[in-house]
Amino acid sequence: MFNEYDVIVVGAGHAGCEAAAAAANLGSSVLLITMNMETIAQMSCNPAMGGVAKGQIVREIDAMGGYSGIISDKTTLQFRMLNLSKGPAMWSPRTQNDRKRFAEEWRLALERTPNVDFWQDMVSSLIIKNNTVVGVKTSLGVEIKGKSVVLTNGTFLNGVIHVGEKKFGGGRTGEKAATGITEQLTELGFEAGRMKTGTPPRIDGRSLNYSVMEEQWGDENPGRFSYTDVARPTEQRCCWITYTNSEVHETLKEGFEKSPMFTGRIKGLGPRYCPSIEDKINRFAERERHQIFVEPEGWNTCEIYVNGFSTSLPEDVQYKALTKIPGFENAKMFRPGYAIEYDYFPPTQLSLTLETKLISNLFFAGQINGTTGYEEAASQGFIAGINAHQKVKDKHELIMKRSESYIGVLIDDLVTKGTEEPYRMFTSRAEHRLLLRQDNADIRLSPIGHNLGLINDERLDLVKKKVANSDAIVEFSKKQAIDMVQANALLEELGTSALNQTVKVFNLLSRPQVGINDIRTVNPSFNEFLDQFDKETIEQAEIKIKYESYFEKEQEIVNKMQKMEDKDINPNFDYSQLVSLSKEAREKLLKIKPRTLGQASRISGVSPSDISVLMVHISK
Amino acid sequence: MFNEYDVIVVGAGHAGCEAAAAAANLGSSVLLITMNMETIAQMSCNPAMGGVAKGQIVREIDAMGGYSGIISDKTTLQFRMLNLSKGPAMWSPRTQNDRKRFAEEWRLALERTPNVDFWQDMVSSLIIKNNTVVGVKTSLGVEIKGKSVVLTNGTFLNGVIHVGEKKFGGGRTGEKAATGITEQLTELGFEAGRMKTGTPPRIDGRSLNYSVMEEQWGDENPGRFSYTDVARPTEQRCCWITYTNSEVHETLKEGFEKSPMFTGRIKGLGPRYCPSIEDKINRFAERERHQIFVEPEGWNTCEIYVNGFSTSLPEDVQYKALTKIPGFENAKMFRPGYAIEYDYFPPTQLSLTLETKLISNLFFAGQINGTTGYEEAASQGFIAGINAHQKVKDKHELIMKRSESYIGVLIDDLVTKGTEEPYRMFTSRAEHRLLLRQDNADIRLSPIGHNLGLINDERLDLVKKKVANSDAIVEFSKKQAIDMVQANALLEELGTSALNQTVKVFNLLSRPQVGINDIRTVNPSFNEFLDQFDKETIEQAEIKIKYESYFEKEQEIVNKMQKMEDKDINPNFDYSQLVSLSKEAREKLLKIKPRTLGQASRISGVSPSDISVLMVHISK
Repeated sequence: MFNEYDVIVVGAGHAGCEAAAAAANLGSSVLLITMNMETIAQMSCNPAMGGVAKGQIVREIDAMGGYSGIISDKTTLQFRMLNLSKGPAMWSPRTQNDRKRFAEEWRLALERTPNVDFWQDMVSSLIIKNNTVVGVKTSLGVEIKGKSVVLTNGTFLNGVIHVGEKKFGGGRTGEKAATGITEQLTELGFEAGRMKTGTPPRIDGRSLNYSVMEEQWGDENPGRFSYTDVARPTEQRCCWITYTNSEVHETLKEGFEKSPMFTGRIKGLGPRYCPSIEDKINRFAERERHQIFVEPEGWNTCEIYVNGFSTSLPEDVQYKALTKIPGFENAKMFRPGYAIEYDYFPPTQLSLTLETKLISNLFFAGQINGTTGYEEAASQGFIAGINAHQKVKDKHELIMKRSESYIGVLIDDLVTKGTEEPYRMFTSRAEHRLLLRQDNADIRLSPIGHNLGLINDERLDLVKKKVANSDAIVEFSKKQAIDMVQANALLEELGTSALNQTVKVFNLLSRPQVGINDIRTVNPSFNEFLDQFDKETIEQAEIKIKYESYFEKEQEIVNKMQKMEDKDINPNFDYSQLVSLSKEAREKLLKIKPRTLGQASRISGVSPSDISVLMVHISK
Repeated sequence: MFNEYDVIVVGAGHAGCEAAAAAANLGSSVLLITMNMETIAQMSCNPAMGGVAKGQIVREIDAMGGYSGIISDKTTLQFRMLNLSKGPAMWSPRTQNDRKRFAEEWRLALERTPNVDFWQDMVSSLIIKNNTVVGVKTSLGVEIKGKSVVLTNGTFLNGVIHVGEKKFGGGRTGEKAATGITEQLTELGFEAGRMKTGTPPRIDGRSLNYSVMEEQWGDENPGRFSYTDVARPTEQRCCWITYTNSEVHETLKEGFEKSPMFTGRIKGLGPRYCPSIEDKINRFAERERHQIFVEPEGWNTCEIYVNGFSTSLPEDVQYKALTKIPGFENAKMFRPGYAIEYDYFPPTQLSLTLETKLISNLFFAGQINGTTGYEEAASQGFIAGINAHQKVKDKHELIMKRSESYIGVLIDDLVTKGTEEPYRMFTSRAEHRLLLRQDNADIRLSPIGHNLGLINDERLDLVKKKVANSDAIVEFSKKQAIDMVQANALLEELGTSALNQTVKVFNLLSRPQVGINDIRTVNPSFNEFLDQFDKETIEQAEIKIKYESYFEKEQEIVNKMQKMEDKDINPNFDYSQLVSLSKEAREKLLKIKPRTLGQASRISGVSPSDISVLMVHISK
């Protein structure tokens, strides 16, 4: 019934969709297996993409030829660049999305990817020969051959949903759980664990009183995730902000004794940085209120997502507490919030390509690796899909560096350190975040996408042009003088000290208070010169002028550390012989099998003196 | 958490959606409970509405103020008026629909109906006091009070899906089954049974060779279901026709020994007139081929519905047989076809309002009553929703007559005769089908909708105007003479005998070969007169001119029989005292509790002599 596929992707969430698209676009024949073809790319939690550090990841996926950015752009209800008041390393794009449109556009994008086939069924086990995966078996009893398999099971593996004291099996509310795979993998020697995540109730927007909430609009000149998509949204929708209060908190506490979290019924650890409202009240008892984001689910539907109010308390407690929130006095619920427990596999069992160490050609991506978040899932799926293709086609593996991308940080953290609670990306996780910006993901990563064959020449040329043109602006700014008299009125207005001599545009722009558009108003030649470039190029130039010196220093650090990163270690290196290593280091190194000295140095339990020992031996 | 609702509707398919909308629009507070808010109004089977007899039902729902017509119109991929070569009683509108848009538009329509609230949960039991339903209890443990409850559980009650020798619980593929209600109702004394239905595989349209299939386009001047929606589709999509052959049949037969149908694993009876492909081959062994309609699932998706190929044979047999169909040589499957068994309640347990006889204020609609088809379900939901409202608001009940609507035929058949296999509507089921046409559903039923309050004055005035204007055209045609010479060239062209004297337009139009547009070309005065009217009015006039005499004869029959229909019987009439009735008649009458002598006469086992006995006694 089926020919042998190059890549079989199991699960069609953010990770599965990116994996299927990437492998197919590289030339692999791909089969995407989903339990329900109607729920491909369902946003299970909030109807939004991006945000701090996550927005950067979406840009990185886009820069390398993934689809998440384009799909988000097509379905944007509202776009905001977060943290614009901070330095450019913190700028983070975020969209509200139409939930239904998002899923629909993903499915259409996959249908338009000629090498992707679809099959609706539940994968119940893998077919393994000689420690290599060679296919899957489904609940229908179908056996499908595949040279590689990417597992992206999300929260479906033995998923159990909790609402107060009730619990039922399910991969999402109203959907079945998936069974079989954990049991098989555990028997094969994989270590499995349980994690927990949750989602807030959904509300009937017709029952809310928005007049007492704060409006939150999108950017006046909204941007995009995708570097290729230049059509900006012409219409946006409003969101709202409201707050919990002590009455809300007291009401929620009434349900604590029935909370599956606090009574120990849920064993899995939840996402620390995306806590449930009961967690927030419990852990931050001193806080008098918490922010609630009131987010529309789509262009037309009245359904509302109550961001910040994730909960698994009994539904009547959820409801009672909700009605104490300003604007929610008459709220009607569509569906209660719930917690979900599911199986994951500690990601130290993977190599940096996201292939498992135990079973060849088997890749894991997304929540199965203990992460949380659409963007984290999508990026892992993208890399797993690429590496599955590269592996079966005997091509070089793709390992993303920590110094070149958040995706590299994510995967290195997972594989090297593991995670015991749902892993979420933060800018603080990236030691070189100054270089990993949303504005330069294309510059950083398009060459990699091009080298793989996911980015065409034309697109790479555009990136090269952006670099050349922004450099030209920088050069021009170094030569173009600004007249003291012309500038001083502006400088006073901007609250910065006056000039006492004519300076170059470059010097004035280096001041934090002065923007490139300010200078355009007082220097017609500069203004005219800029007219030939697009917004992104001008922005890139401005960032370079203001921050290049910092970037250069950071790059020097990267270069120094790169020596460690460039020191490859044979993954099969026999640490057990190296008695001069500490016992803990030997064990950890044997387990993680680091690919470089740099990666080895990040393993917890591996000390600098262990690294010195290693350095001696691997250079032999 | 919930106030008491006037009407609780359980299930959000075609029946549940119409029930919720109707009751809410009449002024009831309505709660619509669905197991998954993402699958409201999912088209579980073919992506199409209407067809022979079914299209008439959609028109009837629309004429009374239901939504099915409007939703179908909004999501039309293709419109065809079937049977145009036959008499107007056979004309039947049918649309192909975009499956996702259809569901989305229904949900939006309900969200825009202010009295409809939503709750995502599974109803696990009814709350009953003094043989009256007073609410529902859900799997979350929530108790919700309702003055009436409409059950529209579709195929979900203890649903079991079969593919070859595999079976699993589920209400649709990939979705959970619902449990609890059957068990409770059975304990309360309800009789329950099992039925079966099925669906064909879904195919990847990218894998088909359309060039060897017949194209099937929509009408050149497409119509609409809704009488209020005058915007006609400007774009339509093509469907295709292909055929099975002996090779396909032989391949399918290879799977017969594993067929859940033929091996007796499926106990429930399936729809006789919508048989599976294995049924067709089995029952019509002499047929060398069967027609296959290749239908797109939406505007953009490549998914294809293989209408006519419903099957529960093993998926590999389905696949192998499919590839022998011309155009399907390289077909790829998205999902296999399957059969589903589910609980239903023999509908003789209902009164003509669709309220159960055992439990007051409890209504059943749709597949739970043993019917098949979206339109049959929608119309029952519509009537059940109306009657639930009328009951709790102490208003008159709505009982549709067989002589005024297909909906009346449907409900009377179900309630009076019951059904042991999935009941589907046919024109042949309506003894007065000459009067129950798609062109006059508005004339027949808008007054009922208006009387209830579902149709406003403006809309009723439009119907009255249509009647008056079409009458005016008829009158004009009786006076307007046609010149012999002018007409004869046309008549020769149309293949009908020439005139030998001047006649009236009316007389010429009575000829079957001559259409109203033909006459417009030869009679400028008539043409000019018609210019002031719309297409529907002119069509109505033409139908009247051609068929009025037949209609009048039919109406006379109705009027005669109406005497029987008007003879009310007290539903609590004690037949057990009437010893002159046959034993069988006594039993059946006690069970069915007919509302009129007419209904009594249609009960199988009640003979004309029993009716004579009844006639004497009920008129006492």
